[in-house]
Amino acid sequence: MRYDIAIIGTGPAGVSAAITAKIRGKNVLLLGSAALSPKITKAHRIDNYPGLPGVTGAELAEHLRGHLAALEISVTEAQVGAVYAMGDWFGLQAGEEMLEARAVIAATGVVQGKLLAGEDEFLGRGVSYCATCDGRFYKGKTVAVIGQSAESPAEAEYLAEIAQNVLYFPTGGGTPSARDNITVINEKPTEIIGGKAVTGLRTEKALYGAACVFVLRDAVMPDKLFPGAETDGVHLKVDNEMRTNIPGLFACGDVAGKPYQYIKAAGQGNIAALSAVGYLRELDNNQ
Amino acid sequence: MRYDIAIIGTGPAGVSAAITAKIRGKNVLLLGSAALSPKITKAHRIDNYPGLPGVTGAELAEHLRGHLAALEISVTEAQVGAVYAMGDWFGLQAGEEMLEARAVIAATGVVQGKLLAGEDEFLGRGVSYCATCDGRFYKGKTVAVIGQSAESPAEAEYLAEIAQNVLYFPTGGGTPSARDNITVINEKPTEIIGGKAVTGLRTEKALYGAACVFVLRDAVMPDKLFPGAETDGVHLKVDNEMRTNIPGLFACGDVAGKPYQYIKAAGQGNIAALSAVGYLRELDNNQ
Repeated sequence: MRYDIAIIGTGPAGVSAAITAKIRGKNVLLLGSAALSPKITKAHRIDNYPGLPGVTGAELAEHLRGHLAALEISVTEAQVGAVYAMGDWFGLQAGEEMLEARAVIAATGVVQGKLLAGEDEFLGRGVSYCATCDGRFYKGKTVAVIGQSAESPAEAEYLAEIAQNVLYFPTGGGTPSARDNITVINEKPTEIIGGKAVTGLRTEKALYGAACVFVLRDAVMPDKLFPGAETDGVHLKVDNEMRTNIPGLFACGDVAGKPYQYIKAAGQGNIAALSAVGYLRELDNNQ
Repeated sequence: MRYDIAIIGTGPAGVSAAITAKIRGKNVLLLGSAALSPKITKAHRIDNYPGLPGVTGAELAEHLRGHLAALEISVTEAQVGAVYAMGDWFGLQAGEEMLEARAVIAATGVVQGKLLAGEDEFLGRGVSYCATCDGRFYKGKTVAVIGQSAESPAEAEYLAEIAQNVLYFPTGGGTPSARDNITVINEKPTEIIGGKAVTGLRTEKALYGAACVFVLRDAVMPDKLFPGAETDGVHLKVDNEMRTNIPGLFACGDVAGKPYQYIKAAGQGNIAALSAVGYLRELDNNQ
């Protein structure tokens, strides 16, 4: 089926966009973690979300989950590898599946910190951001996982079912359950190396051979996720109505620029949803 | 005293700006109705303020008042007639008082509906938006009040202490308490008339003589309130950081453009406050 609006990300921006799109009668596909963005849950205390003074991140996430439940909005836990503009609809690559939506709202957060040396150079040639998407290409091989997100351990376990060996470098988030073919290495990765394709990962202390390095962050660089979209570093470029340069693609929250604040994200989610609703109305009128 | 940041308006935008400015350690002057914007309170039910599903306007106002109280932010109930940019500070004319702030955030809402015929033409020549500011010029005269705001009845009562007669045209909000020299006229005003200055007010049914017509709305046209600011109809022009063309003047909420939504207003209030904080930091660094 083709959804009216796909929303990628379940932080305050994505949740807000989903809420407004739903009450405007749209058929919404909300993609992300059902526990909501780890960035919310991890916040100690949020003092400036008006109406909820001194709320903890866990409490805010609980409030937002309650709001989604009240409006019967479910979260689909697929990881989107890339979003392709197809004219009057979008294809969202999620693992081996291609999801479809007429409009897309990016609420994907930002990549924190620097890229690893070699990361950009080898992307698509042995650097991957998505275990579900690319794991199957490394059957019987040794792969490395740089696990920065809450979902990284589970993805490493999935990879361990395909690859011969998984070298897991925890750099935030937890570690995978013990398995024969998963090695947890507590060293800081410094460089991805290779020739035509990746051959290994260097840390401060050693060099590890690997056919692929999976860099699993909470967020993916927007130029990778949204081919053709204008970006400004880690941000998608948007106008005041949260429109990107691609008709039908909107952005909100951290990926749409600073400040990185919960209430700003929620406010922009609302604008993005209403802009998407207007965009769909125009599409319908022109048909 | 000169405040760091004056915030005009106590809707979700102004409250959000005040909260963020306060937790960033700024000395905040929040101007507006302590009961908070009548537009919030009047809302039946708000479905898309994330975290507070199905909240009524009165409940949201209660939540916001609680948040202000938790952060010890008080509301100053002065009505601002005009804001003057003085270089590295602003003068806010409030009645006969001139308040001072280094930065100003406009969260004043928008004028709903059309201007009255003659309103723009006679502004400053017998049309006023502020009883407290201009009432004293009409001692012993007959004045008309077009009362659209919740505060209009109280302002009419104040005028009745100065003017000989007050003709009160309720067009929203309540009516003033009975007094000898207040006449409540339930007719729809259609045109302000005069020559060099105002001489009267025409309704659908009659023509009433008056030396001044006080048009008391919840909001004032931004080009009147912020001389020199670039506007686009009822909106102040802003960039993505909520900056207007006047350095140190920021805008958020309805006055900064559509959509007119509570959560969008709260999000923009946050951005405006952080932009104002950044502006003050730059001012300090350059001194």
